[in-house]
Amino acid sequence: MKNFIYNNSTIIIFGKDSEQKVGFETKKYGKKVLLHYGGGSIKRSGLYDKVINSLKKEEIDVIELSGVKPNPRLSLVREGIKLVKENNIDFILAVGGGSVIDSAKAISIGAMYDKDVWDFFDKGVEIKAALPIGVVLTLPAAGSETSHSCVITNEDGWYKRSAASILERPKFAIMNPELTYTLPNYQTACGATDMIAHVMERYFTNEKNVEYTDQLCEATIRVIMDSVKICLNDNHNYASRANLMWAGTNAHSGILGTGRIEDWASHGIEHELSGIYDITHGAGLAIIFPAWMKYVYKHDLERFARFANTVFGIKINNDLHETSLQGIKRLEDFFAEIGLPTKLSEVNISTDKFEEMAIKATKNHKIGNFVKLGKEDVINILNLAK
Amino acid sequence: MKNFIYNNSTIIIFGKDSEQKVGFETKKYGKKVLLHYGGGSIKRSGLYDKVINSLKKEEIDVIELSGVKPNPRLSLVREGIKLVKENNIDFILAVGGGSVIDSAKAISIGAMYDKDVWDFFDKGVEIKAALPIGVVLTLPAAGSETSHSCVITNEDGWYKRSAASILERPKFAIMNPELTYTLPNYQTACGATDMIAHVMERYFTNEKNVEYTDQLCEATIRVIMDSVKICLNDNHNYASRANLMWAGTNAHSGILGTGRIEDWASHGIEHELSGIYDITHGAGLAIIFPAWMKYVYKHDLERFARFANTVFGIKINNDLHETSLQGIKRLEDFFAEIGLPTKLSEVNISTDKFEEMAIKATKNHKIGNFVKLGKEDVINILNLAK
Repeated sequence: MKNFIYNNSTIIIFGKDSEQKVGFETKKYGKKVLLHYGGGSIKRSGLYDKVINSLKKEEIDVIELSGVKPNPRLSLVREGIKLVKENNIDFILAVGGGSVIDSAKAISIGAMYDKDVWDFFDKGVEIKAALPIGVVLTLPAAGSETSHSCVITNEDGWYKRSAASILERPKFAIMNPELTYTLPNYQTACGATDMIAHVMERYFTNEKNVEYTDQLCEATIRVIMDSVKICLNDNHNYASRANLMWAGTNAHSGILGTGRIEDWASHGIEHELSGIYDITHGAGLAIIFPAWMKYVYKHDLERFARFANTVFGIKINNDLHETSLQGIKRLEDFFAEIGLPTKLSEVNISTDKFEEMAIKATKNHKIGNFVKLGKEDVINILNLAK
Repeated sequence: MKNFIYNNSTIIIFGKDSEQKVGFETKKYGKKVLLHYGGGSIKRSGLYDKVINSLKKEEIDVIELSGVKPNPRLSLVREGIKLVKENNIDFILAVGGGSVIDSAKAISIGAMYDKDVWDFFDKGVEIKAALPIGVVLTLPAAGSETSHSCVITNEDGWYKRSAASILERPKFAIMNPELTYTLPNYQTACGATDMIAHVMERYFTNEKNVEYTDQLCEATIRVIMDSVKICLNDNHNYASRANLMWAGTNAHSGILGTGRIEDWASHGIEHELSGIYDITHGAGLAIIFPAWMKYVYKHDLERFARFANTVFGIKINNDLHETSLQGIKRLEDFFAEIGLPTKLSEVNISTDKFEEMAIKATKNHKIGNFVKLGKEDVINILNLAK
């Protein structure tokens, strides 16, 4: 087990009607709030009114910035930073899913920086300050509600890049599973896939002596898989919505990666995919992750066989190759079962930009830690996904 | 799943040589520190010198209070409060296991209160302030290094009582598994039993829709059991010491209880036992928990059969009674295997004070939530443990 430092101070306020506490929680940190959200869905659902009323009740000034899109854009982040600076805003409230939260995080670090916010994403400039942010979560997926990182897409070249700092952890995350009842099944499935990917990025490690987090990872994946299948057939199943939501937070809170060296190659490759083609991140992961697994599984057959066994109950036989491949196949079958594509052809992506994506993904260095991947490796993985 | 609020902000600094960071971490919170510890073991091991040197390097003033005993005493807590108030101490550093940390927590809340500290334990007075504390952990067991509660024994009547507040969570916990190499096997085994009990107090709940935390609980118990067996045979096994230590923290961090109603009857009964007879808490739990299980298992056969299956791999057959009892038997066998008593007679405790303990345990109200227990129930459980 590697040495580690773990600190996750986000206050989780979980359960029915929890969104009614948003004003009370917000006023602990600020009096003038940037309310950041996507589009009309929170207005249609009535959540927008509830949030506004709760903030007004606490006499909090609200300035709005809506329009966050999936794969959130740098241009809107810059607009938000300008708004915050011009209006002396002291708190950012993200109401939405990972895209909204990530956009809010980028604004929060950009607002405390006197140069261009993209420096944090492209040049790796150290983040030294951030405005506090809070979250009302509507889409369980990205785990951004307690994570210490965010991912932003720069439309100038369609680069999708991340920036991390413990300063990005939200002060609070309000999580009411009922708010996810109205999600389209495709979004629920993409969300679950993102969660599973977050666990797998940590699970596939070369560190051998991490039995505790191994078992926590396996439990988390199993529960996400079982819960999402129930949610897709019974949208208003509170228990499964709740288990899925809470597992999704823990999938990316950082605790599952303690003592491990994490991988993140699949996310790196997928970021090029969704950066260029603007497909949903979870769908991209359902395509890339199995391809990555097929490409690297021989590196540690025991780990892949264990994955097959503990996640899918596949009996480990003498041929670890076969057990490993059965596990990967079952994962693909699962993604297909919940309605996601598992091949690039299913989302009409041809081989045209494989080279471009591979070059961009490996621009600064090889990616991944379980197996280090260069440009040719990425092209090979994309070919396995076509 | 019940609504919940979860917030654990303790910074975990985990791994080899982590104790060398104690001065650096401490100076973030205070300049004049009460160094609180037990007896000679940290001096013999060299840890005392390392801590002192690290604090001195940061020019931190140190006032010492040693002498914490297992089942930490109110008299020493009062002495510590006096020291803190008289010397304007601004931080308490606990170097030790759960007893030392609990004693430090009690001092930290008493130091910010102008009446008697026992009010928090006996009268349930609300805790409104606490001095910050930090931890260097030497005995993985109580989980007090991130928990929000402490347990103190009042020698006047030998009452063992707890007090809880989020303000009690330590600011940081330094955890080096190597510091546990020199623990006697009995202490290691008692510690593991305390951890398992912390999980079981949460696992046995009437809340049905908590699949995620159910599986996290089961994983945590399995890893504790497997790890401690290795540690007892190979004291210097870093991986197992590390897995045990980290699982023990998570066993009582609060995360495993999220969304659940916890039980805590077995702890309540055991506190009377160790309060009166001064036996090690973990040993008391190895005796009381199986007896409690035998007394209540019929209340939810499915849960007890599931426990037998997921923790011990016992096949669930049609007779859930039999499966449940097999699971309890295996737990008793496990405690015996790691060298702990499972009957009161093994620690020379007779039936003499069963009534006294039962009256004290149920003094203010029935105990437990899985099954509510009154005085007669406690006597019945003690009889099952004799």
